[in-house]
Amino acid sequence: MSKKYVYLFSEGNGKMKELLGGKGANLAEMTSLNMPVPQGFIITTEACNKYYEDSNTISKEIEREIEENIKKLEKLTGKEFGSTKNPLLVSVRSGSRASMPGMMDTILNLGLNDEVVEVIAKKTNNPRFAYDCYRRFIQMYSDVVMEVGKNYFEKLIDKKKAQKGVKLDSELDYKDLKELAKEFKEEYKNKVKEDFPSNAKDQLLGAIKAVFRSWNNPRAIYYRKMNDIPSNWGTAVNVQAMVFGNNGENSGTGVAFTRNPATGENSLYGEFLINAQGEDVVAGVRTPMAISELENVMPEIYKEFVEICKSLEKHYKDMQDMEFTIEDGKLYMLQTRSGKRTAQASLKIACDLYEEGMISKEEALLRIEPKQLDALLHPQFDKESLERANILASAIAASPGAGCGKVVFDAETAIKKAKEGEKVILVRLETSPEDIEGMSYAEGVLTVRGGKTSHAAVVARGMGVCCVSGCGEININEEKREFELKGKIFKEGDYISIDGSTGNVYGEKIKTVDATICGEFETIMNWANEIKALSVRTNADNPRDAKKAVEFGAEGIGLCRTEHMFFEEERISAIREMICSDTVEERENALKKIEPMQQGDFELLYEALEGKSVNIRFLDPPLHEFVPTEESDIIQLAKVMGKSVEEIKNIISSLHEFNPMMGHRGCRLTVTYPEIAKMQTRAVIKAAINVSKRHPEWEIEPEIMIPLISEAKELKFVKEVVKKTADEIIEKEGVSLKYKVGTMIEIPRAALTADEIAKEAEFFSFGTNDLTQMTFGFSRDDAGKFLKSYYENKIYEFDPFAKLDQNGVGKLVKVACELGKKGRKDIVLGVCGEHGGEPSSIEFFHKVGLDYVSCSPFRVPIARLAAAQAQVKFPRKKD
Amino acid sequence: MSKKYVYLFSEGNGKMKELLGGKGANLAEMTSLNMPVPQGFIITTEACNKYYEDSNTISKEIEREIEENIKKLEKLTGKEFGSTKNPLLVSVRSGSRASMPGMMDTILNLGLNDEVVEVIAKKTNNPRFAYDCYRRFIQMYSDVVMEVGKNYFEKLIDKKKAQKGVKLDSELDYKDLKELAKEFKEEYKNKVKEDFPSNAKDQLLGAIKAVFRSWNNPRAIYYRKMNDIPSNWGTAVNVQAMVFGNNGENSGTGVAFTRNPATGENSLYGEFLINAQGEDVVAGVRTPMAISELENVMPEIYKEFVEICKSLEKHYKDMQDMEFTIEDGKLYMLQTRSGKRTAQASLKIACDLYEEGMISKEEALLRIEPKQLDALLHPQFDKESLERANILASAIAASPGAGCGKVVFDAETAIKKAKEGEKVILVRLETSPEDIEGMSYAEGVLTVRGGKTSHAAVVARGMGVCCVSGCGEININEEKREFELKGKIFKEGDYISIDGSTGNVYGEKIKTVDATICGEFETIMNWANEIKALSVRTNADNPRDAKKAVEFGAEGIGLCRTEHMFFEEERISAIREMICSDTVEERENALKKIEPMQQGDFELLYEALEGKSVNIRFLDPPLHEFVPTEESDIIQLAKVMGKSVEEIKNIISSLHEFNPMMGHRGCRLTVTYPEIAKMQTRAVIKAAINVSKRHPEWEIEPEIMIPLISEAKELKFVKEVVKKTADEIIEKEGVSLKYKVGTMIEIPRAALTADEIAKEAEFFSFGTNDLTQMTFGFSRDDAGKFLKSYYENKIYEFDPFAKLDQNGVGKLVKVACELGKKGRKDIVLGVCGEHGGEPSSIEFFHKVGLDYVSCSPFRVPIARLAAAQAQVKFPRKKD
Repeated sequence: MSKKYVYLFSEGNGKMKELLGGKGANLAEMTSLNMPVPQGFIITTEACNKYYEDSNTISKEIEREIEENIKKLEKLTGKEFGSTKNPLLVSVRSGSRASMPGMMDTILNLGLNDEVVEVIAKKTNNPRFAYDCYRRFIQMYSDVVMEVGKNYFEKLIDKKKAQKGVKLDSELDYKDLKELAKEFKEEYKNKVKEDFPSNAKDQLLGAIKAVFRSWNNPRAIYYRKMNDIPSNWGTAVNVQAMVFGNNGENSGTGVAFTRNPATGENSLYGEFLINAQGEDVVAGVRTPMAISELENVMPEIYKEFVEICKSLEKHYKDMQDMEFTIEDGKLYMLQTRSGKRTAQASLKIACDLYEEGMISKEEALLRIEPKQLDALLHPQFDKESLERANILASAIAASPGAGCGKVVFDAETAIKKAKEGEKVILVRLETSPEDIEGMSYAEGVLTVRGGKTSHAAVVARGMGVCCVSGCGEININEEKREFELKGKIFKEGDYISIDGSTGNVYGEKIKTVDATICGEFETIMNWANEIKALSVRTNADNPRDAKKAVEFGAEGIGLCRTEHMFFEEERISAIREMICSDTVEERENALKKIEPMQQGDFELLYEALEGKSVNIRFLDPPLHEFVPTEESDIIQLAKVMGKSVEEIKNIISSLHEFNPMMGHRGCRLTVTYPEIAKMQTRAVIKAAINVSKRHPEWEIEPEIMIPLISEAKELKFVKEVVKKTADEIIEKEGVSLKYKVGTMIEIPRAALTADEIAKEAEFFSFGTNDLTQMTFGFSRDDAGKFLKSYYENKIYEFDPFAKLDQNGVGKLVKVACELGKKGRKDIVLGVCGEHGGEPSSIEFFHKVGLDYVSCSPFRVPIARLAAAQAQVKFPRKKD
Repeated sequence: MSKKYVYLFSEGNGKMKELLGGKGANLAEMTSLNMPVPQGFIITTEACNKYYEDSNTISKEIEREIEENIKKLEKLTGKEFGSTKNPLLVSVRSGSRASMPGMMDTILNLGLNDEVVEVIAKKTNNPRFAYDCYRRFIQMYSDVVMEVGKNYFEKLIDKKKAQKGVKLDSELDYKDLKELAKEFKEEYKNKVKEDFPSNAKDQLLGAIKAVFRSWNNPRAIYYRKMNDIPSNWGTAVNVQAMVFGNNGENSGTGVAFTRNPATGENSLYGEFLINAQGEDVVAGVRTPMAISELENVMPEIYKEFVEICKSLEKHYKDMQDMEFTIEDGKLYMLQTRSGKRTAQASLKIACDLYEEGMISKEEALLRIEPKQLDALLHPQFDKESLERANILASAIAASPGAGCGKVVFDAETAIKKAKEGEKVILVRLETSPEDIEGMSYAEGVLTVRGGKTSHAAVVARGMGVCCVSGCGEININEEKREFELKGKIFKEGDYISIDGSTGNVYGEKIKTVDATICGEFETIMNWANEIKALSVRTNADNPRDAKKAVEFGAEGIGLCRTEHMFFEEERISAIREMICSDTVEERENALKKIEPMQQGDFELLYEALEGKSVNIRFLDPPLHEFVPTEESDIIQLAKVMGKSVEEIKNIISSLHEFNPMMGHRGCRLTVTYPEIAKMQTRAVIKAAINVSKRHPEWEIEPEIMIPLISEAKELKFVKEVVKKTADEIIEKEGVSLKYKVGTMIEIPRAALTADEIAKEAEFFSFGTNDLTQMTFGFSRDDAGKFLKSYYENKIYEFDPFAKLDQNGVGKLVKVACELGKKGRKDIVLGVCGEHGGEPSSIEFFHKVGLDYVSCSPFRVPIARLAAAQAQVKFPRKKD
């Protein structure tokens, strides 16, 4: 049997998202729930993939299926596609498995031509409406299908308005619009060098192809990369009978959420416009009315809509985001989906749905996107500073959080400045999909136009970037790169602050402070702890970070990078002496200067952790990272060491490496200079003894981690150095301190020989950053030069340094876990690479049986939630 | 039951080499063959390892076993150890599993003290003999056990000779020697601060410990590293009743081979000395007589010895190397082992043994050490140049081959100069184990003293380094760093030439030429081809190397590095233009200049290979390797390209990489600049079409190899570029050329995902050089700084770049082979890293099922033999 590429709405259901896309599957589901859905059909995601396989053509068999379904749709609606009798108009919309709002293309009012528009005009007795539809269709089709930009047509509209001496589109009458339609078609011919297609079927195939194509437009590719959506998913195409919200005062269109997507409050939330098509609401061009107003305007419709909302939420057990249209007094549902929401709303809705008995704790945890929590961990305004600040304007609180930075007026500048380390606020008349990347780099987004469901608002919420929208008081002059607000001129580079939770705009710099965990956040985090199997530790090199992490729920330190302690000014000179030593004795003398400082650092760390595990990694980077480059520093060092400048320079140049990443570093330093490891061991052990004496109630058991091991005998050698040094101190002090010695697994060979290494190691900690570099054979510092081409050519779909490459690096991790347990039954397994804070990687680490993940302090809550979700999805025995 | 650590000779046999060491096992075997062996016992290699485990002490249980066996030996010999009645003297010798001649320590005449020596003097009626033994024993014991150097004692001898006004040791009489013994003991006390041990048991335990210790002396460690002997094998200790070759004119000692170890000729070969101990022969101090002379001197003994030789060879089915001693007219065998031999001898003996019906072809192949063939492939003197040259002197042809280079006088200088790229001849009075490393770096070794079995001769033969020994005409002045020969002064740095096959020495530079394969070499190579399962290809980038390799039996090219072709002067400027291009067009223009040259190169290569497979690897190194560094070159390039010097410099600096090894190179260049791969494809395909037209009888099927692949989609992308370009040309030319596209497996991730990659690759070629670097996480260029410490601390036992690390890198190779076959049933598997020419690695590649190995031309015969040996040892189905 040949594959089925086209489904009527009545042939599908909500579970068929992979095949029908999210929008299509939900339209099918609503159809099966007998909700008022304009009927239509869905061309599957498989058809999209086949389109690409067939060198960007629609195969004959798919074309035939489309024709058959058009026939069926004609029967369902009693209308005829491309006919002048009772013409069927359709919308053509993209719809991929995951929601990608605004990323791909839509065409409305398809099926119109010079004859059909006249029929519509007569039938509706509304020629202005008919020609408004027609000119919109020509404009959209030209833009989407033939890439003739909207601006060409907008110029013609402006010209027409100037001729007529009017300001608003709505002041143009039916004749003006009819003339415009004619001029639009001429413009089309002018640009495309052929007539505007009048045949409905040609229009339809052109539109479908355009939607398929739009799957690979740069916006969509960027969005997918940012959201980890594979390029091979493809998009479905929804062809649906048109209903018209712009057919007079008894019509309208709107979008709504069953609950407040900004706060999570359980009340209907949304906006609508009378006599408008959907794009008018979403684009933020006209400022719409709140959904609650609908009760006054059309009480019956409102009642019906509220009922539908309730049953949709009950059916999907989640907050819904819906589009609807009212045509001539009749309500139609055009879309429903689980609504995007702020992190705060996400937490509240999950807690509320649980309280309302709709879902379990486990389901509640799954309702929250871990990455979103990031927004809650971002700085908020410092209360005192905020009290002193002046509110310059107040607009729509579109995406919560506080942002403070320098004004920029376009996405490119935002990206550029942010990459230079500056904090920026992107100020725009309104945002468009082209701005997405710039928005992700900004501290906040401020728009002049648009409501809570405008493009800026939706995208910013999704990103966790704060946003204030619809600040109409702003007069923006993009050319001069400045804006005026309340008589004050802000130029590019001036500071402003915005509060996406209140909608307030401040014309000044306001101090921000870190967030804390309380309320629903705390509830959810507690549930996560109840459920998760993985422990969550933190990567912290100083007591400040460590304390923050503990506040966020860290159960210990998974990685303390001791070299970070070496760079402080008073230490670096001793380090340099150590490096430039000729003899073991000289080296030991320099190390003696460093030892008390290291010991002090460790004491503070143990104090901060109050008895929780502290894993200390011994010196890792190559020594040349520490040597001076400035002539004056070299001279100074020569003086201190009683050597000639020449000698020092020779030592420095002898440290040069061709490939420092693969050079003399990590445990290799201990093999050549055991005295370094001895010093670090003394510092770790003495600090633990001292703090244990001060706090006998804590059970301090230092974990000493040897980096860059590639061979069991190498670890054995280093471990003997460590154990000999440690045991001597412990014996001398007459205490009974326990400590562990283990290793990073960050070299492929270590993973491959983990059974042997485990015989020497009490724990493994996967250093997935280096492991990724070695496994892929590229250095993170150098890969920038070619990775762009890799993303463009779809060779890599995501950044393997951000998200674990389960297919390659993951195999090594899995093998090492299995071998490690073979070598030592009770080996402790953790991860301290950046992947330890990334949800999909955490799920993988849960599945392969790690004991803990360790991540940066601000990722700890994310990791806790991700760990809990992993346990819900893939339960494993807990210790 | 507790472990047995000590075995009487009569308790062992020849198969117990692992436990008893080679010497011990063979002494046991000879004992069981009823040959005249002085009896004794063996302390096992396990005891040696236990000695190290027990912190360098001999455990009580082992000491008890030694005592018991001394008792048994006393019974067997009827003598008493440490007694003045009928005193038993013993020798204590090392003996590891593999023969390590001269590497470890030996002590003779143990059991002597002031009383015992008198008993011996009386019993033998030869007081001079007794005291000669005694002073030798004190000297050896001091040196070996207490590290009091021999030179202290030699000074005393010299002093004594001066007092007496004599020149030779033999001119000293019994009283002199008695006095010397006394002085030696005083010297000992002086240095060691205690009395020389007079108790025999103390002497024995001291000597045994010293032998155990000598397993880890620097000479032994270096020898093991050079010969891939694991450090955990340990050495056994042989304690054997002394027989005395220095007990008058009816006594003697010698060493002999059953066949000529230099030529392989089937006639007894060796030397002996009358009235001497073994060390006198081996040390090369006195010049001995040829073994054939023994027939005249002691006809009965000679007859007996010849019989023993015959039966030993028959028993072991191999040429034997034996030590014997004649005590007072009675023959004793002290050692037998398979004799070291030159490569030429090795081949002849293997062929002869087969012809004599003693062994099969398969056994014959196993008799030859593949690495040894290297010597035969080394240059010989050019015949014409040799005819013109003047023979300055003629001495002993100790190790065959021709060597020409600059004179050096010590091992350190030899190593230094050789590392600087100079060819050197090491000239020494006589060599000692300390010289081994220097010898391995020299083109040849010339000694003043010593015979065919002297240290220099034995070691040089083992290494395949040519050697002329015993050139007594030389007057060497090591201090002035010069020697005089036939009135001519040679200073350090002057050229000489030596011929280790004739013994000739030339005071000039003589041209050398490459070797060819003929005679027994050819026979053995033909047998290897009959038997081996692996194909052997070569790594060659030019027709000259390729032809040489085909002469040596290469069955195709396994790796042609195209970038080597880029460095020629006329090409590099076009390459630089290509690199400094701003646009695809500029780049394509530059590539067009290179294309005809590349095509020409490939045509010559196809011609040279006459239809055999040619595997061409596309551009691999990062582009910055090609850019100019000289200011003048930069200015020139700027001029050619019509750019400013500034611009060119910016481009060059933008190419800088932190870790070039893991940077923008290999297939990554094709992903960013597909036009490079397109040009190379055109050159490969057009060349193949042209040569096919000229030679329709050859079936040319180019293999295009993509380097540095880490992901299937990456290969898919590059393959599409290649296939599109190639197919267009083939179609345009209207020919039916076949070609293959495959990849290197040199990145760990490629090995881990080889099933996916195999779907895109028609062949894999393991790039084990890079794979080793990535798997170990160290770069070959940088590892030098720490690998020495790794060898010293016995963390690594061998250089993983020379010999495949089967435990780590090998696992990836194995996994990739299995996955590769899963992904594509008929995938062709090869290796082109340097390991492809290393015997133990070849055995591994055979076992994991590769189709071919590829190595440098001079390694091809070695690889053929190693491949055949692998098939004999581990037979697999042949295609």
